[in-house]
Amino acid sequence: MPQSTLVSAAMLAIGDELLSGRTKDKNIGHLADVLTLAGIDLKEVRIVADEEDAIVEALNALRGRYTYVFTSGGIGPTHDDITADAVSKAFGLPCVHDDKAMQMMAEMYARRGLEFTEARQRMARMPEGAEHIPNAVSTAPGFRVENVYVMAGVPQVFQAMLEEVTKTLKSGVKVLSRAIACPYGEGEIGTDLAAVQKAHPETSIGSYPRYDGSKGFHTELVVRARSEEVLNAAVVAVEEMIAAIKSSKTVTLEA
Amino acid sequence: MPQSTLVSAAMLAIGDELLSGRTKDKNIGHLADVLTLAGIDLKEVRIVADEEDAIVEALNALRGRYTYVFTSGGIGPTHDDITADAVSKAFGLPCVHDDKAMQMMAEMYARRGLEFTEARQRMARMPEGAEHIPNAVSTAPGFRVENVYVMAGVPQVFQAMLEEVTKTLKSGVKVLSRAIACPYGEGEIGTDLAAVQKAHPETSIGSYPRYDGSKGFHTELVVRARSEEVLNAAVVAVEEMIAAIKSSKTVTLEA
Repeated sequence: MPQSTLVSAAMLAIGDELLSGRTKDKNIGHLADVLTLAGIDLKEVRIVADEEDAIVEALNALRGRYTYVFTSGGIGPTHDDITADAVSKAFGLPCVHDDKAMQMMAEMYARRGLEFTEARQRMARMPEGAEHIPNAVSTAPGFRVENVYVMAGVPQVFQAMLEEVTKTLKSGVKVLSRAIACPYGEGEIGTDLAAVQKAHPETSIGSYPRYDGSKGFHTELVVRARSEEVLNAAVVAVEEMIAAIKSSKTVTLEA
Repeated sequence: MPQSTLVSAAMLAIGDELLSGRTKDKNIGHLADVLTLAGIDLKEVRIVADEEDAIVEALNALRGRYTYVFTSGGIGPTHDDITADAVSKAFGLPCVHDDKAMQMMAEMYARRGLEFTEARQRMARMPEGAEHIPNAVSTAPGFRVENVYVMAGVPQVFQAMLEEVTKTLKSGVKVLSRAIACPYGEGEIGTDLAAVQKAHPETSIGSYPRYDGSKGFHTELVVRARSEEVLNAAVVAVEEMIAAIKSSKTVTLEA
């Protein structure tokens, strides 16, 4: 795996409601899917409350370490939406009402016959000089500062913004993967699987236990590699391993 | 809110599969629900890959900062299950095959007529001296070292372990909460809501936008407080705010 092509990312999900259980996050899994398809390695996720210090600290820890950082949540119009302030603070920039955002939003609310309230104007605030992330659902833009992409928490809006962002990201070499259903639990295959992994060092073989009350434990094995050839060799080895376990069981039954 | 009764917690979810999107986490939301009921404030969540350095670093950052840390994942029998090693390293303890766990598991596999393989024996490994967390689903125990609770990633097992753990935790003063459905979007209520929050400083009022393609934005408002009296006063104020917006709209229509 050529290291130079690795593109890494982190996510920072912001919101008390995710930590109280009131809202079950849907954005982490979606981002993970989208980045995997783009060949970008999501390496770390953090969820923090709507507290400025917590957001600033997490953001500064992540943005220095990964190619990209994506945030969700806290850019709405209410008093507990403080992400724009916190991102500004993290970058040492003033948080301002962005002229272009104010104009777009004023026009949209006028078209809809709604007042462009002080609260709604909060959604035009961002670090000075930030680049907009278009919002096809509800106009109020997300924004980018350097390698940090600040997006909404409402899943429909997060997804719409991410779709715009994804077009602009540099992709890594895509990780190829193959899933293999294995009818045995991890306890039965663990030692053999470790040997297969050792014999195929350029792959990453993941083992994901599934539990089903009636059938007990079975396993999904996922082989990942950055070339088709390397991938295929390891997949064959895993399939041979499963066949060998199966035939050893048959022998036992017949014996 | 008396600070002395606040009990805080963090979660560390471990596993490549959560970051690739292959598995959508179900444990974070469940832990959040359980802790909220117990009056324990979940303050931070991190998700990291099956990489020893990443686990050790996150664990050491979290365990010094919060009353409790709960981990999920990476305690199965395969080569990519390295949580026991990483937790041992974080505490500077040797990672050993625990005698009692070995015995319990040997008995269970014997009863089921299954071999107690080297891979299965991996699940008896834990930092020397760790306390068991019972596993009613599949025997192999989780474990506790100081304020860190190490549990399985499979949701059925995580939930069974957490149920055992919850009985032993000290509870904080429970946060009372009341949800109020608000038919208006955040942009319409933001300014008034900020005034209500300011007038009720002992409460925390959260505003959670919901988007419905046909109806547009509406909002769930959640008032939280640690006494019934304080809670009620703020709930009345929020309801009055919504009624005032409603009547101002009626006047506008009639005018």
